[in-house]
Amino acid sequence: VRTIDWQDGHIVAIDQTRLPAELAVLHIHTVDELIDAIKRLAIRGAPALGVAGALGVALAGGNRELAQRLKAARPTAVNLAWGVDRVLSRPDALVAEALSVLGEDVTVNRALSQRGADWLLDRIGPRVDVQTHCNAGALACVEWGTALGVLRALQERGALSHVYVDETRPLLQGSRLTAWELTQLGIPHTLVADSAGASVIARGLVNAVVVGADRVAANGDVVNKIGTYPLALAARRAGIPFVVAAPESTVDVATPTGADVPIEIRDEAELTHLAGTRISPKETRALNYAFDVTPAELVTVIVTERRTLAPDAAAPAATRA
Amino acid sequence: VRTIDWQDGHIVAIDQTRLPAELAVLHIHTVDELIDAIKRLAIRGAPALGVAGALGVALAGGNRELAQRLKAARPTAVNLAWGVDRVLSRPDALVAEALSVLGEDVTVNRALSQRGADWLLDRIGPRVDVQTHCNAGALACVEWGTALGVLRALQERGALSHVYVDETRPLLQGSRLTAWELTQLGIPHTLVADSAGASVIARGLVNAVVVGADRVAANGDVVNKIGTYPLALAARRAGIPFVVAAPESTVDVATPTGADVPIEIRDEAELTHLAGTRISPKETRALNYAFDVTPAELVTVIVTERRTLAPDAAAPAATRA
Repeated sequence: VRTIDWQDGHIVAIDQTRLPAELAVLHIHTVDELIDAIKRLAIRGAPALGVAGALGVALAGGNRELAQRLKAARPTAVNLAWGVDRVLSRPDALVAEALSVLGEDVTVNRALSQRGADWLLDRIGPRVDVQTHCNAGALACVEWGTALGVLRALQERGALSHVYVDETRPLLQGSRLTAWELTQLGIPHTLVADSAGASVIARGLVNAVVVGADRVAANGDVVNKIGTYPLALAARRAGIPFVVAAPESTVDVATPTGADVPIEIRDEAELTHLAGTRISPKETRALNYAFDVTPAELVTVIVTERRTLAPDAAAPAATRA
Repeated sequence: VRTIDWQDGHIVAIDQTRLPAELAVLHIHTVDELIDAIKRLAIRGAPALGVAGALGVALAGGNRELAQRLKAARPTAVNLAWGVDRVLSRPDALVAEALSVLGEDVTVNRALSQRGADWLLDRIGPRVDVQTHCNAGALACVEWGTALGVLRALQERGALSHVYVDETRPLLQGSRLTAWELTQLGIPHTLVADSAGASVIARGLVNAVVVGADRVAANGDVVNKIGTYPLALAARRAGIPFVVAAPESTVDVATPTGADVPIEIRDEAELTHLAGTRISPKETRALNYAFDVTPAELVTVIVTERRTLAPDAAAPAATRA
């Protein structure tokens, strides 16, 4: 089953808020329904958001006002706007172009995954132990994955040893989604608190960090799920590579640096409440950044379907691409 | 109300698992009850564990077998063993010595807090914005606090601007306990995800990190609640001081480095379950480190009631004590 797909003139998508307890499928017939699904993270992951943008414009029949509202559903991942704009540019063939975006996502992810696996085997092989964060798997895309796609490619080659995954507060994409995917794939894995990822790295339990991205700025700064940056700091200190796996559609040459990327701030109730119950005093406010910025110089390599970029020109040779 | 105290021949203590919803008091009459309260973190915090160890030996009437079991209740904070040993060394005056430990905790914390406030005002003043982690407040001690004690001393001098506190997964001591204490004290504060602390630092929202410690090794490595180390990495990169506030009883000259400290690994259900419900697949295992090690060279200063230690001899002068 694909994470997001087009069937009989509407969008079908796995409701990611229900996993792993239930594999529920949403049928989305209007842009308003799509925006709601995106805002509540039923559909999430930068590549999947690109496809959602593309299919949403098809759903809207090319209506520009609806397309603009869709683009604004979440601000950080550049893929959403990219998918919308790409289909808007083909008013003569909205559905065909949207289906192209959908199909390309699979081939693009497989290509970048092979590139990432090649790079890791060349640098680290023959056995790779990985720390990852959030979910950059099939559930973040159409059906293969970016960071988890790289791990799947390593697994196919018999080169993947173990994966440590952060739970990824507050919405627990690691505990719920990545752990579910790794279980389905039969990949040995261990869940850790977000705050423990740096210790996993410092203790030598892994020899690489592999994550996805929501936007790569022109200078190579990587914007990804909150909690990515401390892993990059720990990887640099431990002297292990920090690898970003993302499609070219995530690279935003129009945005000079990470500081120029709008960082989504989500509802503070995601932090002040747990399972519907308030856990902090009612007077306590929370600041709920959804993403952080990893400076280019901490990024060892970015693999896309076309390129292997090494932004960390200032890094020691031992960890430089 | 004191966090832990001695009344009519038994221990009374705030049940920290119930805060902030309820201020419940435990009456502890046996060492077994005390061990249970310590294991489930009803009583927690290195200084409070030291007092619990001391009062527990009084409760046990100096019984050495019970004392040994009490020492082993939690392995990482050295204070527990310190408190036990100190009272065991005075078999002629068990209760009097235990009460000395209890009373000293208050004066010791006030002294180290003034020292920490002096240091921060000298280095950063006149307004200090702080990132902290977990709970090193009155609830971790008898009645004043270590890291939060420093912040209270700053507040008394009109020099504390704002405190950012990590929620501190999995047991949420930040969301529940530190937020509650800061609310009681009228200190402006904001809750963030553990994974966001590094971003708070990178964005310049704070000009110091102030935390407590569970054990300081002879070389200055600091063992503290899991998630402390990534804050130290972020502080170093941002060029702001990383300050540890702890009593001398936390300094363990018998342990050469952080690598020699036993790190407690807690039940994986604290990560795989949320509010009693399993959130990750049943096949998924978790690794639940309770503490991490911050290398001495990332520690700008350790303030105790007697000394100001600067372990980071290798640090740039701008952040060196």
